[in-house]
Amino acid sequence: MPIEHAPFSQVEYDRRIAKTRQAMDKAGLDLLFVTDPSNQAWLTGYDGWSFYVHQGVLLGLEGEPIWWGRYMDALGGRRTCWMSEGNIHGYADNYVQSTVRHPMQDLAGHIRRLGLDTARIGVEMENYYYSAKAHAVLVEELPNAAIQDATALVNWQRLVKSDEEIIFIRKAARISEKVIQTAIDRAAPGVRKNDLVADIFHAGITGVDDDWGDYPAIVPLTPSGLDATAAHLTWNGAPMREGEATFFELSGCYRRYHAPLCRTVYLGTPPPEMRAAEQAQIEGIAAGLDAARAGNRTCDIANAFLDVLAKHGLSREGRMGYPIGLSYPPDWGERTASIRTEDETALEPGMVFHFMPALWMESWGLETTETILITENGPAEALCNMDRKLFVKD
Amino acid sequence: MPIEHAPFSQVEYDRRIAKTRQAMDKAGLDLLFVTDPSNQAWLTGYDGWSFYVHQGVLLGLEGEPIWWGRYMDALGGRRTCWMSEGNIHGYADNYVQSTVRHPMQDLAGHIRRLGLDTARIGVEMENYYYSAKAHAVLVEELPNAAIQDATALVNWQRLVKSDEEIIFIRKAARISEKVIQTAIDRAAPGVRKNDLVADIFHAGITGVDDDWGDYPAIVPLTPSGLDATAAHLTWNGAPMREGEATFFELSGCYRRYHAPLCRTVYLGTPPPEMRAAEQAQIEGIAAGLDAARAGNRTCDIANAFLDVLAKHGLSREGRMGYPIGLSYPPDWGERTASIRTEDETALEPGMVFHFMPALWMESWGLETTETILITENGPAEALCNMDRKLFVKD
Repeated sequence: MPIEHAPFSQVEYDRRIAKTRQAMDKAGLDLLFVTDPSNQAWLTGYDGWSFYVHQGVLLGLEGEPIWWGRYMDALGGRRTCWMSEGNIHGYADNYVQSTVRHPMQDLAGHIRRLGLDTARIGVEMENYYYSAKAHAVLVEELPNAAIQDATALVNWQRLVKSDEEIIFIRKAARISEKVIQTAIDRAAPGVRKNDLVADIFHAGITGVDDDWGDYPAIVPLTPSGLDATAAHLTWNGAPMREGEATFFELSGCYRRYHAPLCRTVYLGTPPPEMRAAEQAQIEGIAAGLDAARAGNRTCDIANAFLDVLAKHGLSREGRMGYPIGLSYPPDWGERTASIRTEDETALEPGMVFHFMPALWMESWGLETTETILITENGPAEALCNMDRKLFVKD
Repeated sequence: MPIEHAPFSQVEYDRRIAKTRQAMDKAGLDLLFVTDPSNQAWLTGYDGWSFYVHQGVLLGLEGEPIWWGRYMDALGGRRTCWMSEGNIHGYADNYVQSTVRHPMQDLAGHIRRLGLDTARIGVEMENYYYSAKAHAVLVEELPNAAIQDATALVNWQRLVKSDEEIIFIRKAARISEKVIQTAIDRAAPGVRKNDLVADIFHAGITGVDDDWGDYPAIVPLTPSGLDATAAHLTWNGAPMREGEATFFELSGCYRRYHAPLCRTVYLGTPPPEMRAAEQAQIEGIAAGLDAARAGNRTCDIANAFLDVLAKHGLSREGRMGYPIGLSYPPDWGERTASIRTEDETALEPGMVFHFMPALWMESWGLETTETILITENGPAEALCNMDRKLFVKD
């Protein structure tokens, strides 16, 4: 079947499959069952809002991968995956949210038919959508298989982006610039937060020129004032107010690829301590970008930022970033490396991170972040072109 | 702490807790660990886009429930939950997506401190966000506990809605009418699907008057033509075309409560077989509503629809609906009863279902659905006010 919708070249998919099989070989696996929707899409092109039922990709050591899911979604698989129709399997609808049968029984049947029921099978134990129950059923159905944890095996293969992928992330970055600019332009005292978020969604999904916008894996996070001390509150219908900072944690999305970007807007005159934190944050980000070089490690980025912060008499705990790219809700991070002091992942050209050294204080939050690309030589490239400052509207 | 953000009365939360404890007692549980974000919100008011890290609610047989999650989200818990601050616990950030420690180790510590490490503990085995790994760690950490499956224990308590909840669903229904009307108005040959979806998002999130729109648990599903034979494909940047049907599967959302509504738009003159299916579907929905009476069962609704379909020489497989209400991504269904021939759940006043007898054919799909409320007497009430027909624009 020709590739109608799968967004990448066959060469690119072949590269991904080969890379994953190398990792399987190293982990001693004959078969991998991939639940993570991002990993499924990365390997096969599958794209649909169907991850709320059990589905996944079976990847053996040879041949095409097999996409497996609900029958009605197998129809979507035929329209989005690059594989032949014979490698797209649907299970009957009475498995869906049933109390008497479980889709993993059907999957186990497939594995038996493949003659792999005594194989060494990797599963993504730590993944949304691979439930404790799904695992229990699979283990019960395949008593002679050696089922082992292969969490993030595919995710790690996604860490260094191909040129084709970087093109997509750059398109997402253009959309990110548009959505952040929309947020900054529209923010004003009296504007209801939900009305502002509606404009943000509209800007992101209309996209930029021919690059239509897809749904980001996280909804717009736009908390103001005290709500901004908590990182993940969503909007409500309250009007924006003079004397409050609002942070905008947003991302454009192009065909499931993201380029997150955050800026903070203050309505009125910001207090001196926020201005001081702004200076420290901006200087720290520059230091972080300079440390984000091939050959350095993720912790070097974190330490470079924290050193600057300390010089300004400030401190911060927690993670400061993560790799990004292809993703589905509920998270746009890749869940492998982290930009934090205890993480020693070696940086390589083609890696893309959301570097987000947000400062969450007692009574306000200040988020200024960048999506950064590790280059061959020199400091990281910030993929979005947006002033790096606290935006003040008074 | 006063309730700042929790959307319901304390009487309502007390009702929910008491109902859940009765079910725990019946299931022989001393403690329940609730992972489902919808169940967490239903019990405590917690509301944040933070379900991509491990978090949950501990409910014992007395006292307030305990919300537990990442430290930065505990700050959000203080701003959204009704409980006292002492019952909102945050774990350190270095547990997040770590390869050397797991948040469930922290949770196990809490359970030990509560003196419940030898208790009978219920967990939601079949749930997004309760991963196979999370379960394995909890079992390992609490070797003397009797951990058992309590999947959907809370969900079943949510099936009959309170008056307070029905008010919210009616507000969502007003927003649903607005978004479907927007889709119908904007659909035209040449309109890019993503631009249409942008308008749909905008309509939903601006909401209706003071009832601001929240994000629906599923993004707008709007496939056209052959894509509409697959149920869960999302949009792209292709223009709408003459001679194609597009179904709109949408929902307004008011403070996490949903009222899904689907309609189909045909651009041009629909083929006779689609018109025939339309008549069968509309007549079948009327029959289904008439069968959706307190005292009847969910299967009676399905059979009433299928009987009409058969009279028209048509048939259909699969589920035709599910209970709805409070929800978070990736699904707005409650995952308990189903409207299908093999489900015998007794209907009671206050239950709310998305009755969705969509017809997915070889080369097109026809979705016309209703959110319905089971009443004291008489047939179900369709909560949205929207013509029940195939919308034709030629």
